[in-house]
Amino acid sequence: MALVTDFAEIVGAKHVLTGADVARWSQDWTGKYSAAPGLVLRPASTQEVSRILTLANARGLSITPVSGHTGLVGGTYAPDGILLSLDRMNTIHEVSATARTATVDAGVILSNLHDAAEAEGLIFPLTFGAKGSAMIGGVMSTNAGGSNVLRYGNTRDLVLGLEAVLADGRVVNLMSALHKDNSGLNLRHLLIGAEGTLGIITRAVLKLHPKPRAYATAMVAVPSLQDALDLLNVLQDASGGEVEAFEYMPRHYIDMHLSRINGAREPFDAPHEINIMVEVATTTERDITELLENVLARRLEEGTLRDAVIAQNEAQRREMWERREAAAEISFWRTPLVDTDVALPLDRMPDFFTRANAAVTTLDPQAEPFYIAHLGDGNAHYSVYPSRDDADLHDRIIEAVEDIVADLGGSFSAEHGVGLSKLNTMRRRKDPVALDMMRKIKAVLDPAGILNPGKTIPD
Amino acid sequence: MALVTDFAEIVGAKHVLTGADVARWSQDWTGKYSAAPGLVLRPASTQEVSRILTLANARGLSITPVSGHTGLVGGTYAPDGILLSLDRMNTIHEVSATARTATVDAGVILSNLHDAAEAEGLIFPLTFGAKGSAMIGGVMSTNAGGSNVLRYGNTRDLVLGLEAVLADGRVVNLMSALHKDNSGLNLRHLLIGAEGTLGIITRAVLKLHPKPRAYATAMVAVPSLQDALDLLNVLQDASGGEVEAFEYMPRHYIDMHLSRINGAREPFDAPHEINIMVEVATTTERDITELLENVLARRLEEGTLRDAVIAQNEAQRREMWERREAAAEISFWRTPLVDTDVALPLDRMPDFFTRANAAVTTLDPQAEPFYIAHLGDGNAHYSVYPSRDDADLHDRIIEAVEDIVADLGGSFSAEHGVGLSKLNTMRRRKDPVALDMMRKIKAVLDPAGILNPGKTIPD
Repeated sequence: MALVTDFAEIVGAKHVLTGADVARWSQDWTGKYSAAPGLVLRPASTQEVSRILTLANARGLSITPVSGHTGLVGGTYAPDGILLSLDRMNTIHEVSATARTATVDAGVILSNLHDAAEAEGLIFPLTFGAKGSAMIGGVMSTNAGGSNVLRYGNTRDLVLGLEAVLADGRVVNLMSALHKDNSGLNLRHLLIGAEGTLGIITRAVLKLHPKPRAYATAMVAVPSLQDALDLLNVLQDASGGEVEAFEYMPRHYIDMHLSRINGAREPFDAPHEINIMVEVATTTERDITELLENVLARRLEEGTLRDAVIAQNEAQRREMWERREAAAEISFWRTPLVDTDVALPLDRMPDFFTRANAAVTTLDPQAEPFYIAHLGDGNAHYSVYPSRDDADLHDRIIEAVEDIVADLGGSFSAEHGVGLSKLNTMRRRKDPVALDMMRKIKAVLDPAGILNPGKTIPD
Repeated sequence: MALVTDFAEIVGAKHVLTGADVARWSQDWTGKYSAAPGLVLRPASTQEVSRILTLANARGLSITPVSGHTGLVGGTYAPDGILLSLDRMNTIHEVSATARTATVDAGVILSNLHDAAEAEGLIFPLTFGAKGSAMIGGVMSTNAGGSNVLRYGNTRDLVLGLEAVLADGRVVNLMSALHKDNSGLNLRHLLIGAEGTLGIITRAVLKLHPKPRAYATAMVAVPSLQDALDLLNVLQDASGGEVEAFEYMPRHYIDMHLSRINGAREPFDAPHEINIMVEVATTTERDITELLENVLARRLEEGTLRDAVIAQNEAQRREMWERREAAAEISFWRTPLVDTDVALPLDRMPDFFTRANAAVTTLDPQAEPFYIAHLGDGNAHYSVYPSRDDADLHDRIIEAVEDIVADLGGSFSAEHGVGLSKLNTMRRRKDPVALDMMRKIKAVLDPAGILNPGKTIPD
């Protein structure tokens, strides 16, 4: 095949994969978007990515970038298509302790970056369940969130600079390590979260934070979600904004975790309905555990807290985190599944769950809602196991949940991105003028439409 | 004039200004870009802005938006042109204490928003000298910085949502109050900092922060800039990131301040070369003044600090802030002036001043460098008073400073924006592929080129 030969000339024959060799890229772990690509290209440098796109653009060949392949919205789905895998571009070029920055290739695995930063007494705070496979390129292209967004922001808040290859093969160099840079239109934020539709991110300068001296991590049970939100505000003010995670796990999540995960344990002696994992961390010399204990003791007295367990060592802390990080694994276990990833104003969160549960029950009385939330960010992963595998019913459930989200001033897409799975929703829900702007920008930056076609921006 | 009549139909006759009535918009306070516009339109609503642009677009009329008119780069310069002033759109629609957000029109004056937030026990942290005139629309369009960026970020970090009118009069609604929203290309960040070239921002949802319970503000004198940067890191770690301002004022700034400002006083008993204004603030119950005192006492012993004065009351704190906030007023007082606004990696700041001073002296031995810096952000306002009014010499001075900035991995534009004054620099210094992307985006979103033409993006 002439095409294989041409690509082989760029990346080397053994890095053009076909047939059985593409198996690793054929399985989508959500189970929804599994498909064998026709070709997988594994370039080793920006230069090679550039040559691939130059060639693809000239011939009108579609290219879908892939890094860790851990996305949840089908963003890398390309049956019989060409995947460009960034996995060989995995160098951490520099970790600067004085500038508190890391310069990395797009194929660096998130947990490897965590380790490299820690070795310098720093942290790259972004983290989520798939951290052992997810790569920086995908993390940036989806503006990934996770469990520390509350304190450190989303991915875009942690990116100082980047390099990307455009559809026509040109390389745009925005590799700044600066905290202020007002030099024209902000292309960095345009490329971050674009899901590979405008360019392929190849390198980045990332912001690192000082490693906390101490963590105080707890599971707490509260009478109501409103009590949980009040606790968050009290803790934020008392700690000076040092709350790193505030994760809501309802009873049904704890039950599912107990039944699915080997060695899983109840967080408390008695079961509770509303369980929160909270973590406070500090670089100061203050006793943060004492601070957390004092706040929790006061609320126990007031009756706005039912129970609390503070991790006494790193092993107990890990257990609390692992309970939370198993979420994606647990929720995609069972089918049929209707999953969403919605954002709401913080004060509308209690309302949202009540209304969504009621709406789902009306549509399908046997359906089981299943959810978990980054409560401090107003971000819920609200899923439903419907009683039957019926595409029409699934669609009506999604629409009903979206109606409530829209009514409460929320967004249908918080942190997982749009990919394929939310394309219809984008069409229905996004401001039509905004959609038109996106289409125009896409058309002018990728006129042949070769970059991850059919994703993110609906026709 | 038919045009005046047509616009009068949209905004009302008394809000279409011509002749002597445009005087208020004819003076540029830097003195560099004073020019009388031909017409000033003062719409009262998004709807009126939309109708103005629809008409202008159909007839190919250029429109330059203006709000507080306090910019430093000629971004609103439009001799004989049409200015669209947002000053009548000055409603603060909502300040929500629970959601910690403010919903405002683009013509709200920054200090009015400060007051409205404080009334709810919150702050909108962005601040700078022109806060009594600058309006939110301009603040957003220039992604303004200022003295609290160190802790709270630039303007774009404080904007959750916005509404803007596009060149063809359509309104794009991105009025989200959410902390996470991954729904397609990020148009919010594209419009922020675009200096009115892609759309006119009409409304915003802004992020508020809790008002600190206590401030500790001090003037400190240090032996070297490296000692200053070390002090910043020590203070950040000791306070858990609660340093709000870290402002460098060299001796020549203090001298100029003493000679220009009525009632100005020396910060210390004896004059020092390297003066820093530092402010730490906390929402916690910790004694932050004691914390600051302890850190400073330790460094005095070590010999890495020469002197320190901690504000004992709000009046002393105000005096320290006013000394810093007089910077723009003081530096634009004298002419000829060559001014820059550069960003550097933090650890290159000491190097930068040494090299820039040497380069300027080589070009013009009688020139006087004059500067001040948001040291914690790596942002220097490095100006030069050349010995003579010679455009060619001024250009060579700017080029020499920019060469050093580029060599040190910095940016020629940190927080003031590009406007007119840095258009040549954009052409010379910005990545050519990035420039091409900007031109393409501009062309597709404003095909008739009516929005603030000749600014920000060089042809």
